[in-house]
Amino acid sequence: MSEEIFQRGLSIRKAVLGTEYVEKSLDAADDFNREFQNLVTEFCWGAGWGRTALTLRDKSLLNLVMLGALNRGTEFKLHLKGALTNGCTRDEIKDTLIQLAIYAGIPAGVEAFRLAREVFAEVDKSPVSTVKA
Amino acid sequence: MSEEIFQRGLSIRKAVLGTEYVEKSLDAADDFNREFQNLVTEFCWGAGWGRTALTLRDKSLLNLVMLGALNRGTEFKLHLKGALTNGCTRDEIKDTLIQLAIYAGIPAGVEAFRLAREVFAEVDKSPVSTVKA
Amino acid sequence: MSEEIFQRGLSIRKAVLGTEYVEKSLDAADDFNREFQNLVTEFCWGAGWGRTALTLRDKSLLNLVMLGALNRGTEFKLHLKGALTNGCTRDEIKDTLIQLAIYAGIPAGVEAFRLAREVFAEVDKSPVSTVKA
Amino acid sequence: MSEEIFQRGLSIRKAVLGTEYVEKSLDAADDFNREFQNLVTEFCWGAGWGRTALTLRDKSLLNLVMLGALNRGTEFKLHLKGALTNGCTRDEIKDTLIQLAIYAGIPAGVEAFRLAREVFAEVDKSPVSTVKA
Amino acid sequence: MSEEIFQRGLSIRKAVLGTEYVEKSLDAADDFNREFQNLVTEFCWGAGWGRTALTLRDKSLLNLVMLGALNRGTEFKLHLKGALTNGCTRDEIKDTLIQLAIYAGIPAGVEAFRLAREVFAEVDKSPVSTVKA
Amino acid sequence: MSEEIFQRGLSIRKAVLGTEYVEKSLDAADDFNREFQNLVTEFCWGAGWGRTALTLRDKSLLNLVMLGALNRGTEFKLHLKGALTNGCTRDEIKDTLIQLAIYAGIPAGVEAFRLAREVFAEVDKSPVSTVKA
Repeated sequence: MSEEIFQRGLSIRKAVLGTEYVEKSLDAADDFNREFQNLVTEFCWGAGWGRTALTLRDKSLLNLVMLGALNRGTEFKLHLKGALTNGCTRDEIKDTLIQLAIYAGIPAGVEAFRLAREVFAEVDKSPVSTVKA
Repeated sequence: MSEEIFQRGLSIRKAVLGTEYVEKSLDAADDFNREFQNLVTEFCWGAGWGRTALTLRDKSLLNLVMLGALNRGTEFKLHLKGALTNGCTRDEIKDTLIQLAIYAGIPAGVEAFRLAREVFAEVDKSPVSTVKA
Repeated sequence: MSEEIFQRGLSIRKAVLGTEYVEKSLDAADDFNREFQNLVTEFCWGAGWGRTALTLRDKSLLNLVMLGALNRGTEFKLHLKGALTNGCTRDEIKDTLIQLAIYAGIPAGVEAFRLAREVFAEVDKSPVSTVKA
Repeated sequence: MSEEIFQRGLSIRKAVLGTEYVEKSLDAADDFNREFQNLVTEFCWGAGWGRTALTLRDKSLLNLVMLGALNRGTEFKLHLKGALTNGCTRDEIKDTLIQLAIYAGIPAGVEAFRLAREVFAEVDKSPVSTVKA
Repeated sequence: MSEEIFQRGLSIRKAVLGTEYVEKSLDAADDFNREFQNLVTEFCWGAGWGRTALTLRDKSLLNLVMLGALNRGTEFKLHLKGALTNGCTRDEIKDTLIQLAIYAGIPAGVEAFRLAREVFAEVDKSPVSTVKA
Repeated sequence: MSEEIFQRGLSIRKAVLGTEYVEKSLDAADDFNREFQNLVTEFCWGAGWGRTALTLRDKSLLNLVMLGALNRGTEFKLHLKGALTNGCTRDEIKDTLIQLAIYAGIPAGVEAFRLAREVFAEVDKSPVSTVKA
C-alpha cells in the first residue's frame, strides 16, 4: 500500500462523511490519535471503501447493519447520514433496518429506528442540506 | 399478517435456500420446532425478505456481514450459497467480506473467508450445480 | 398469523409497558417506522409474548438477562419497569442480575445494577405508582 | 465467602449437571485449570446458583437465553440437560427459545433449536434416563 | 475463599480506582446492590486482580481491550484512569487501542480513542492529579 | 504505508505463527482470498503488531482475551501457540484466562480453558517442539 491508497481513502472519506467533518477531525488530531486517524483513512477508507466490486450505496447499507448489530450508535448515525449522501432512499434504509431487526434481534432494530429518526429530524430541519435524501 | 405472508415467505425461502433443503427442513419438523419453523417462514422470509425496496441480492449481502459479525458459521454458509443463488458474484462477495473484516475485526474476516472457501469448494465440485455463480 | 395475533400482541404490550407509553409510541409512528412498529407488536408481542408455557413474569426475567448481555440499556430500563409490573420482586431482580454478571461478565452486571437503581429511583419517587413493586 | 459457599456450590453443581459429570471434571483438573474449576464452583455455583430468590428452574431458563445470545454452544447443551433435570418442560424450553430468537435474532434461535434437538435425541435414546423430562 | 480474599480485593480496588471513588461506591450501596458490590470486591478484585503472575499494568491493558470489545464505555473510562494509575504510558495505551481496532473492528477503535481523549482531557486539567501519567 | 510495512508484517507474522504455517497459508491463497491475505499481513501484522510500545508478549496476551471475548476459537488456538512462542508462561496464560472469565463471563472462561488444554496437549506431545514453553 502507499500514499496513493491513503489519498484515495481521504477522498472517499470526505465524499461520504462530508469534507468539513473530515477536515475538522483531522485538524483536531493530536499525538495520541493521529496515527490511528491515518490508519483509518488508509486502511478503512482506502483499502476497504476504495474497492470497486460494490457501489458506495452497497457499502453504506452493509455498514448500517454491521454498526447496528455491533451496537455502535455514534458511528451508526454518522454512517446513516453517509448512506443518504450515497444515494440510499429512506425506503431502502427502512428495509435494511427491518432486516437488521430480524437477524440481530428486535432490540437492535428498535435502537436503529430510534437513531434513524434522530438523523432524519436533523437532516430535515437543516435549511440547506448537502444530503441527497 | 396472514396466510398470504406465510406463502410468500415459503416461496422466497425455497428460491433462496433451495426447494429440496427447505422441504427437508419442514418435513423433519416435530412438535418441538414446528411452530418456530413456521415463525421463521412467515416473519423472517415473508415479512422481512418479502419486502421490496431492496433486491434479494442486496439482502444476501446484508446477511453475510450480519452473520459474520454475529459469528453464526452454519447460517453464514447457508446464506453464502443463497448469495450465489441470488446472483452475487464472487468479486462482490470478496469485497463484502473485506468490509466485514474492517468493521467487525480481522478474526471475523478470517473466519468468513475460510467458510466461503469451503462453500465455493462444495459448489465447484458438484457436477450439476443449481447455483448461478 | 393474523389480526388476532396483532390484537393479542397490542393488548400484552400495553399491559407490560403501560397503555400510555404504547399509545404515545403508536401515535408518534410515521411513514418510516410504522411498519416496524406493527411488526414488533405482532411478532414480538403477539407471537412471542403471547405464548403461554411461560408466565409474563418468566419472560420479563428472560428479557432482563438478554438485554443486559446484549448491552441494550434503553430497552433494559423499559423492561425493568415491565418486570415490576409483571410482579417480579426486587429480590428476584437482584438474583437475576447477579446471574447475568456471572454468565455475561462483571461489566454487564455493573451496568445492569446501575440502570436498575435509576429505574427504582424513578419508580419510588412517582407519587401514584402504577407499578406493583 | 468460605468453604461453606464452596461446598454449597459443589452440591448444586452436581445436582444440576450430574454427579458423574462433575466428578469427572474435577478429577481431570490439572495444575493449569484447577484454580479456575474451584473458582467456578465457588463463585458461579455457590455465590450465584446458591442464591434463593429464584428457583433452579428459573435460573436454568435464564442460562439458556444467555448462553444462546452469547453463542456458547457447548455450555448451552450442558445447561439444556440441566434445565430438564431442574424440571423445565419441553414446552417451557420451546417458548424460552422463541423468546431468544425474537430478542437475540433469528440465527440465535435457529442454532438453539438445532442444539436442543440434539440434546433431546441423546436424552430420549438413553435407556435409563436420570433426567426428569 | 474468605475474608482474606475480600480484604485483598478491597485494597487492590482502592489502589487501582482510587480510595475516594471506591469508598463512595461502598457508602452508597443499599439493600439492592450491596451483595453485588461485595461479590465484585471479593471475586473480581480479590480472586482475579489479586493473582500474581501478571502485573497490575498487564491486567489494566487486558481490561482496556476487553471493555472496548464488549462495548462498555463507562467501565472503559474508569479502567483507563486505572491504567494510568497502574503506570501504563500513553504510548502503551495508544498501541493497545490500535490492537483493539484491528481485532474487534474499526468502530470499536474509534469509540475507544474518543473515550480515551475524554479521560486524558479530564486528567490533564485536574490541578493536583493523583494519576501517574 | 508501503512495501516496507508489508515486509515487516510478514516477518513478524512468521515469527509469531511459525514460518511453515504462514508460507502454507500464502501458497494456498487463490484469487478469492489473496488480497485479504495481503491486507492481513500489511495492516494487522505490519501496522499493528509492528508497533513498538508494547512487546510481542504483551500483544499475545491482549489477543487471547479479545479472541476469547469475541468467541473466535480457531484464532484463539492459533494465538495461544503464538503466545507460547512469544515467551508467555503457562502461569501468565492462566491468569489471563481468569481475567477473561471475570470480565467476559464464565462461559468465555470455560471455553478458553478447554481450548488451552487442547493446545497444551498438542504442544506437549510433539517430539521436537518449535515452541518456547
